[in-house]
Amino acid sequence: MINSQHPAPMPNDYIRTDDTWLAAAARLARRARPLSRPNPAVGCMIVRQDRVVGRGWTQVGGRPHAEAVALAQAGSAAGYATVYVTLEPCAHENGRGPSCTELLIKAQVARVVIGCCDPDPRTAGRGIAALRTAGMEVEVLHCAASRQSLAGYLSRVERQRPFVTLKLALSIDGCLAMADRSSRWITGEAARAHTHGERARHDAILIGRGTLLADQPTLDVRLLGLERQSPERWLLTRGQAPAGWQALHDPADLSVMLPAQYLMVEGGAATAAAFLRADVVDRLLIYRAPIIIGGGMPGIGDIGLGSLAAAHGCWRMTDRQALGSDHLEVYGRMSCLPA
Amino acid sequence: MINSQHPAPMPNDYIRTDDTWLAAAARLARRARPLSRPNPAVGCMIVRQDRVVGRGWTQVGGRPHAEAVALAQAGSAAGYATVYVTLEPCAHENGRGPSCTELLIKAQVARVVIGCCDPDPRTAGRGIAALRTAGMEVEVLHCAASRQSLAGYLSRVERQRPFVTLKLALSIDGCLAMADRSSRWITGEAARAHTHGERARHDAILIGRGTLLADQPTLDVRLLGLERQSPERWLLTRGQAPAGWQALHDPADLSVMLPAQYLMVEGGAATAAAFLRADVVDRLLIYRAPIIIGGGMPGIGDIGLGSLAAAHGCWRMTDRQALGSDHLEVYGRMSCLPA
Repeated sequence: MINSQHPAPMPNDYIRTDDTWLAAAARLARRARPLSRPNPAVGCMIVRQDRVVGRGWTQVGGRPHAEAVALAQAGSAAGYATVYVTLEPCAHENGRGPSCTELLIKAQVARVVIGCCDPDPRTAGRGIAALRTAGMEVEVLHCAASRQSLAGYLSRVERQRPFVTLKLALSIDGCLAMADRSSRWITGEAARAHTHGERARHDAILIGRGTLLADQPTLDVRLLGLERQSPERWLLTRGQAPAGWQALHDPADLSVMLPAQYLMVEGGAATAAAFLRADVVDRLLIYRAPIIIGGGMPGIGDIGLGSLAAAHGCWRMTDRQALGSDHLEVYGRMSCLPA
Repeated sequence: MINSQHPAPMPNDYIRTDDTWLAAAARLARRARPLSRPNPAVGCMIVRQDRVVGRGWTQVGGRPHAEAVALAQAGSAAGYATVYVTLEPCAHENGRGPSCTELLIKAQVARVVIGCCDPDPRTAGRGIAALRTAGMEVEVLHCAASRQSLAGYLSRVERQRPFVTLKLALSIDGCLAMADRSSRWITGEAARAHTHGERARHDAILIGRGTLLADQPTLDVRLLGLERQSPERWLLTRGQAPAGWQALHDPADLSVMLPAQYLMVEGGAATAAAFLRADVVDRLLIYRAPIIIGGGMPGIGDIGLGSLAAAHGCWRMTDRQALGSDHLEVYGRMSCLPA
């Protein structure tokens, strides 16, 4: 029975912890992607007595850094405040201005909480050391939200390759086209608009020769205001790439794409299989249409799977949403996900 | 900002309408499935001054009917009450006792709200007419929840065939096995247990010859307490069925399965395609495992699709749930769903 006199209790003791502030900084960092490239997309929150006094994220072209933006906004309120930043502040001198470490010391903040150490050998712990030497309290939380927001940058520095998202538009029965290759359209407008938004957040997009010949896709971002965000276009081919495209000869050679942080692979089935076989896919974006094709073109070719048991434990669904009558399923590579 | 002093308002004017009472009766009807067979699974609620005074659902073997059970529970409280029943009360004489129409008149209920007219020619409006003749207020609401709870019965009477659910356990890329046919296992324990629960609610299960030879499935219900609910076993074959099985020669001949109300088709790909090609599938149960097989056996064979446009508008996702690391996707045939 529903009793209107005793509503469910509200969380009246809702307290923001270091983790929740860092997660908020990671959400700010999203705004920097992809405009911050080639620099990492970093987010920063400055908090004094539970009030936010400054917010920042990496600006177009990589400068100013997130900390500099947040400190400028906070002004004198930064004194004795806590700074939450998704990535270790830079410590290296730069012709374009002082390092973030210097700025934080100068602003006399009390405490710096860092979501993730910077693996860049120019920083790599030096930022933390400099802050501590200056008498600041520094904590490194190894925060999953921070790492996730920096996935492309961390992949570039730690694995010398971009973070790879494989996108497929599939029917219920996993086909990406009819047997005669016709594929317009599997998904509806909302799903296709979502794809354009994803493209805008990537530094590079790759397709295979079959898709190039069949669809002649422009791969541009067709969202108002985002047209100039269109990523680099790459073709998986042993031969030459046409004008306006770059050639990747093998998914094992992804380092040639650097400094790209985020690569989106858009198919078709052979290209998807080549990337999966090389074990370089970090995230799957499956746009699932509520249609059955039946005997159509399978979405993914042979990946050299040895046994069914080997297929398990690789992917976990991390998100899903309805897009019109379609559904987006997002899967993360288990080895990249927090436990 | 979260303000603990002003919690979100609760629905303090929550009023049960005829529709919500009928939906509650439809939920009761679920308890009758499949034990009520060959009779329809009906649910009944008797309400007097906003209090439930009787609840009933069709009993084992089809008798007593839901109304009789609810009236017996209500006793004299049924006088001047409103009776909510998912299906028009029966009006035909029966050697096993009086009709529900007679019982309702005798109990002097004030009002009868019916979710769905009975297409059975022995009733077909006669129940409603008899109640009205006796001075009762009768309303027929054509309630979607009632129709849905009676899908198998309505299909049997109106279409002379059972309501057909096609079940498939598929990978992300729509495969039901590896290329070498190995399929143990695609989905995990929770999904397989859910399948047993679904089997227990069906009157018949059908597979194809390929699946019979490859898997030798027993198709029994392996849930404690439900072992005796195992449905009839059918084989899609032009030839003879082995002992313990019945043969269906063509999906167009589904009337031979009557009086079965609910049929579950469990694959493989050719059987699924045969049913889809014959356009006799009403519901899809897709158990989706978070695995990629790549170049495996497609879940659904050629269904004779003429164009991609023809594939759209046939199915709508009506439900989904996580089952361990798998996800169940339920799709309804659009022509069977409320708008």
